[in-house]
Amino acid sequence: MEQKHTISVLVENHAGVLSRVAGLFSRRGFNIDSLAVGETTNNEISRITIVVKGDDYTVDQVSKQLNKLVDVIKIKVLKQNEFVGRELLLIKVKATATQRAEIIQLVDIFRANIVDISKDTLTVEISADQDKIKALSGLLKPFGILEIVRTGTVAIQRGSECVE
Amino acid sequence: MEQKHTISVLVENHAGVLSRVAGLFSRRGFNIDSLAVGETTNNEISRITIVVKGDDYTVDQVSKQLNKLVDVIKIKVLKQNEFVGRELLLIKVKATATQRAEIIQLVDIFRANIVDISKDTLTVEISADQDKIKALSGLLKPFGILEIVRTGTVAIQRGSECVE
Repeated sequence: MEQKHTISVLVENHAGVLSRVAGLFSRRGFNIDSLAVGETTNNEISRITIVVKGDDYTVDQVSKQLNKLVDVIKIKVLKQNEFVGRELLLIKVKATATQRAEIIQLVDIFRANIVDISKDTLTVEISADQDKIKALSGLLKPFGILEIVRTGTVAIQRGSECVE
Repeated sequence: MEQKHTISVLVENHAGVLSRVAGLFSRRGFNIDSLAVGETTNNEISRITIVVKGDDYTVDQVSKQLNKLVDVIKIKVLKQNEFVGRELLLIKVKATATQRAEIIQLVDIFRANIVDISKDTLTVEISADQDKIKALSGLLKPFGILEIVRTGTVAIQRGSECVE
């Protein structure tokens, strides 16, 4: 069955590693839903979090291929309900002076933040799981969304266990 | 002078585009500080936000090279003070029962959130600019940071103007 899988990949922080990892997915025709890359506690090691759609067999194949890449240190396919997944969005929305109060109320309910304001726009920052982000985006849509900038999902295992 | 530049790149959401963009940077030896990729309001178009270190000449060269790539729609080098930059981190930190209160207090001051707890760990979510993230990480370090997952910086232009 096609479903979303979250894969956490630790890699040596070398030039070209991101290109090779992304290239592996595209060559094999895997549909990347999102990809985020950042340094770990060790600045020589980066973590790439990839959300990919596919069945279990596909994900197994991807993991095996990733393992063959130089610079890949460790791969972990995170199990649903065993990790916290979050994404960050900056959303610029049309807002006249009279609409501001309504938008600010929505933003407060979602524990999001206003990070910029202009005569006719508000820019909202929200960090949340995908369901919550979808809900807020849906409520902001009628005002007119001008621009969305999103990070892609990052995920951390629940409990004391680590992927590092 | 070497400094950080934030580049916002709109691309057609085709297989291989991320690999080509990342490859361009690595082949030319540009030092990518962070990279984030996500969909825009149009699900056929993605935005790649890249933070790169270099002088103005270097950034100019990168932009020209990026413009030559198929699938690249638009590039904008965001000017310091004209954009809001944010990054999302999940930080797993050691925390005994007696240390919890102190960590929760820090987290509250930074308007961060606790997203998971175990017998001897807390997992903190923070979405902020780089200075604030550095400050909180520094304060959490003495407790023992077990794992950091970060998204890379995303940026949105201040005011009503858009890059889309």
